[in-house]
Amino acid sequence: MLKENDVKADVEKQGLLAKKASKKLGQLTTEQKNEALNIIADELETNYEKILESNKIDLEKGKEKGFEDAFMDRLALSKERIVNFADGLRQVAKLEDPTDKTISNWTLENGLNVEKVTVPLGVIGMIYEARPNVTVDATGLALKSGNSIILKGGSSAISSNSAIVDVIHSALEKTEIPVDAVQFIHSTNREATQALFTMNEYVDVLIPRGGGSLIKAVVNNATVPVLETGVGNCHLYIDKDADVKKALDIIVNAKTDRPAVCNAAETLIIHEKWLKENHKILNETLISRKINVHGDEKALEYFTDAVPAGEEDWANEYLDLAIAVKIVSNLDEALDHIEQYGTKHSEAIITENAETAKKFLDLVDASAVYHNASTRFTDGGALGFGAEIGISTQKLHARGPMGLPALTTVKFKMRGNGQIR
Amino acid sequence: MLKENDVKADVEKQGLLAKKASKKLGQLTTEQKNEALNIIADELETNYEKILESNKIDLEKGKEKGFEDAFMDRLALSKERIVNFADGLRQVAKLEDPTDKTISNWTLENGLNVEKVTVPLGVIGMIYEARPNVTVDATGLALKSGNSIILKGGSSAISSNSAIVDVIHSALEKTEIPVDAVQFIHSTNREATQALFTMNEYVDVLIPRGGGSLIKAVVNNATVPVLETGVGNCHLYIDKDADVKKALDIIVNAKTDRPAVCNAAETLIIHEKWLKENHKILNETLISRKINVHGDEKALEYFTDAVPAGEEDWANEYLDLAIAVKIVSNLDEALDHIEQYGTKHSEAIITENAETAKKFLDLVDASAVYHNASTRFTDGGALGFGAEIGISTQKLHARGPMGLPALTTVKFKMRGNGQIR
Repeated sequence: MLKENDVKADVEKQGLLAKKASKKLGQLTTEQKNEALNIIADELETNYEKILESNKIDLEKGKEKGFEDAFMDRLALSKERIVNFADGLRQVAKLEDPTDKTISNWTLENGLNVEKVTVPLGVIGMIYEARPNVTVDATGLALKSGNSIILKGGSSAISSNSAIVDVIHSALEKTEIPVDAVQFIHSTNREATQALFTMNEYVDVLIPRGGGSLIKAVVNNATVPVLETGVGNCHLYIDKDADVKKALDIIVNAKTDRPAVCNAAETLIIHEKWLKENHKILNETLISRKINVHGDEKALEYFTDAVPAGEEDWANEYLDLAIAVKIVSNLDEALDHIEQYGTKHSEAIITENAETAKKFLDLVDASAVYHNASTRFTDGGALGFGAEIGISTQKLHARGPMGLPALTTVKFKMRGNGQIR
Repeated sequence: MLKENDVKADVEKQGLLAKKASKKLGQLTTEQKNEALNIIADELETNYEKILESNKIDLEKGKEKGFEDAFMDRLALSKERIVNFADGLRQVAKLEDPTDKTISNWTLENGLNVEKVTVPLGVIGMIYEARPNVTVDATGLALKSGNSIILKGGSSAISSNSAIVDVIHSALEKTEIPVDAVQFIHSTNREATQALFTMNEYVDVLIPRGGGSLIKAVVNNATVPVLETGVGNCHLYIDKDADVKKALDIIVNAKTDRPAVCNAAETLIIHEKWLKENHKILNETLISRKINVHGDEKALEYFTDAVPAGEEDWANEYLDLAIAVKIVSNLDEALDHIEQYGTKHSEAIITENAETAKKFLDLVDASAVYHNASTRFTDGGALGFGAEIGISTQKLHARGPMGLPALTTVKFKMRGNGQIR
């Protein structure tokens, strides 16, 4: 019990320090913030060996625990990866500062001037899994937008993250940004996470980055407002009027380009009329690309190597070379399926029928809806946002790929000379 | 236990119906929505007697329970008040439709067109206390912005709200808006509220309207995203360089114009130098306006009729003709006090010193910060927003007075001709 309270008190102290630091950070100039990012970048490169040594500890523990290859790959650092982290920070330094932008400015009849201006959120709580790159990326985006950050990374990357934060802290000593603006929660205790979830006094927003269960845990347990990111159970609907080449190209791209990312396709919904005419070439394409089909009853008739799909297949992301296939006899069935199983991330229709396309784009409730294009474009980089905090799958504050502006809020500055109502 | 499950199932069914109705509602034209609002307005006027009869039941119960006069006043309806409700709806019909607005539109090098467009949130859950006007106002704003609404009013207004919703439902029969777009939770059971708090599948946002404890209950228990509104523990800081007339005018206006509203002032922070010179006239002014002073130790030396202020006074709204007074010897002390006790609603400085004013406007973390003006201007009507859903005291999605655009989100519509990455 004592230990639990200690952990909570420690995290709360970090919250207070982060909040205090955010006041100073929020007043720095763009140049001061950019200079700091460049200094952190340099120090990461200079100290890459220290970071790699700490990374080794995590990797050894991971091996002992028998983690999967994909997991180990995300965890593993190299000199090249660290140089990439540093370059990422230098890119963020080059982006436009999202704060202190006047959104609107008007004067009431009584002479009171109203300026609506962007300001930093204050303190961002970042909760993520075993990707040490998030430690650097999130810190860069937070500092550039004038926010303090509290980092809570996965326990399997604790040594790597700790080493990275040590470098960031010593770099910050050489800058105008207070060292306290970057807080790292060392405890891997559940109580530490719970404290962060409910620290409304000091934390302005929580951003979970990771799998569905992590995100769900944050949404269900946090009283601090949450920016939901990431889970993409994306569908491609191949309409009866779909162009065959476009359909095949998009299926292959959306499924195989990077199967493990959130904007990859997970379910094909196919109009039966189209399938009757094109099942051979589709089947060949899927087989040649080693895509495993999990089909509904009708799909099993067309796809010779398919296995039966169940609730699990419709509801979850494969994040792998597998796809669920559902056959429908009209658009409404497709819309109903997407409504039931979609995660409001990215949904696409392939059709040459403009009216059907319009109906799909209007009626599907998702951050991004596509007509005749791959869902893979739901990405801050692809859309030209410069850097991405994540892809919001919620409706409040920010939806879809989030750039730096998502880390700001607004403030009304009212300037008068004695106005009363 | 059986009863609890029944209540939960009923509310979930209402959620599903509201969600389904929102699909149709979201596709209606502005004209169809406006026509519906005008028809509801007419029907409210036509059926005012029915509503007043039901209101009588609530008023009698309220009398039996010995509710305060202010509470009874908010609960009481009259023909005139119902006509005002109807006129409010007609005003909302005249406002610009916030949906289907293109925020940006650009084409990637590969030819993929990206349109960022505003769309309704979907389903709004409104949780409020015993003000039957919220039933009408919130319904009007929700429908105009293309959203379904689930209403959960206070139990002491249950008959009035129920009668109003009956009229709205029969009015909707004559319109293109599905009747199911307006759901009213009849159960006053806690389980009904709890079900609404966690119905993430069907409800897109919860908006609590009411006192601090209601809002806290929603924030602490909801997994559905919340738009926090309302609690305003607002401060006026009278700087050493404050103009006496401006200070007195603003103090009187911010405290006495409407003491029970959230943008009224609750604490005066006064620079000791200013107070030494002006305590006589300030004291006279406060006494003449029947404003009771709760002062800190130093304030008690200056304000002859003051009572000592404690933690309760600093932390809470009086919503009455009382004000807490704290004496400081510099701006930083004032900023620290506001940081500790402010609710991020509206904060004002009175000073002729431009540098001090700038520091205050930059450093105070609130939705609205004022220089030489009354905090009473934090109001959608006063700022020209036309109608107000509430005043957001949180930082995500919307901050400060919220007009119709706060009830929308965005969607990226991507139109291609086979683009892949």
